[in-house]
Amino acid sequence: MNHLVVFAHPNPKSFCRGIVDTIEAAAVGQGQIVRVRNLYETGFEAILAPSDFEGFQRGVTPEDIKAEQELIKWADVITFVYPVWWAGMPAMLKGYVDRVLSYGFGYEYVNGAPNGLLKGKKALLFCTTGSPSDVYEQNGMHNSMKQVTDQGIFEFCGIQVVKHTFFGAVPYVPEETRKDYLKEVQRVVESIK
Amino acid sequence: MNHLVVFAHPNPKSFCRGIVDTIEAAAVGQGQIVRVRNLYETGFEAILAPSDFEGFQRGVTPEDIKAEQELIKWADVITFVYPVWWAGMPAMLKGYVDRVLSYGFGYEYVNGAPNGLLKGKKALLFCTTGSPSDVYEQNGMHNSMKQVTDQGIFEFCGIQVVKHTFFGAVPYVPEETRKDYLKEVQRVVESIK
Repeated sequence: MNHLVVFAHPNPKSFCRGIVDTIEAAAVGQGQIVRVRNLYETGFEAILAPSDFEGFQRGVTPEDIKAEQELIKWADVITFVYPVWWAGMPAMLKGYVDRVLSYGFGYEYVNGAPNGLLKGKKALLFCTTGSPSDVYEQNGMHNSMKQVTDQGIFEFCGIQVVKHTFFGAVPYVPEETRKDYLKEVQRVVESIK
Repeated sequence: MNHLVVFAHPNPKSFCRGIVDTIEAAAVGQGQIVRVRNLYETGFEAILAPSDFEGFQRGVTPEDIKAEQELIKWADVITFVYPVWWAGMPAMLKGYVDRVLSYGFGYEYVNGAPNGLLKGKKALLFCTTGSPSDVYEQNGMHNSMKQVTDQGIFEFCGIQVVKHTFFGAVPYVPEETRKDYLKEVQRVVESIK
């Protein structure tokens, strides 16, 4: 099983990095082949440019987008790891979605209806928040955040979201809780068949 | 009344540009002073960088962020105009939010509870979608998109969202409908007191 981890956090010592390391160890332990795309490290160009549009219209995919698309094609499981900023992804990761899941690669329209082109693949999402999870649970924000990513991005492309996990109050919980978070990451990754 | 319009679309001939022009004309007609920030045109740097964090920690705000913050301070009304991509903002605009609404400017924490620092300001949002609006209404996606932006960004900073409008199927509706959309923009802007 091929496992692609897409990761965006500007701090190389973040807890998100710990999540990525845990995913990698758990996936390798399951005999999976893992590739990690650390978008801040690779310097991914996250802003969809007018030249991208022009390329798409001429049927030409920019080289950097093509490289990311090849990895998605290769992957059976795609995992996103990111800190929740302003109830959403960091711009770096949003821009990866904007540019890489292009028309004709991620989806198409057939008789006016959208058709996902990445069927058969699975997705996991692991998100960290500064506020405690119950704040987001009480007002339905977790559900809204899930809908815009899981349904609005992955399922639109035909990718099945297996699990979207939020880890709350990451900087404030005791060390023991953060260890439990990483155990949960391991459990989720090991449950993917 | 000071009105700041923040706008992100890579195509200078987009319908979003028409929305911005309509806002500007309507607001000026009401005697408002208008400033438009076209983020693609100004070349705003949308990716929150490790150096931004380091600056914030030393109490130093990068110059480009400071310029945007001054405009927000100046504004009584802040209007966002953008195409919905993947159930959210273009990365360009998300990055504006990530970088500009920094801790100590947009919000702070008091005894562990968030406190918005931009109280008294109002916001409008105008969004375009490729799919018809009833698709988004049926499954609750409009509501989720509103919650993550209106509550997750603006209200978190203490800004009152007066109206968040979606214009559906923009490329596919008859010209007459697009004209109606612009009349609706005018009505909303003129209703702001």
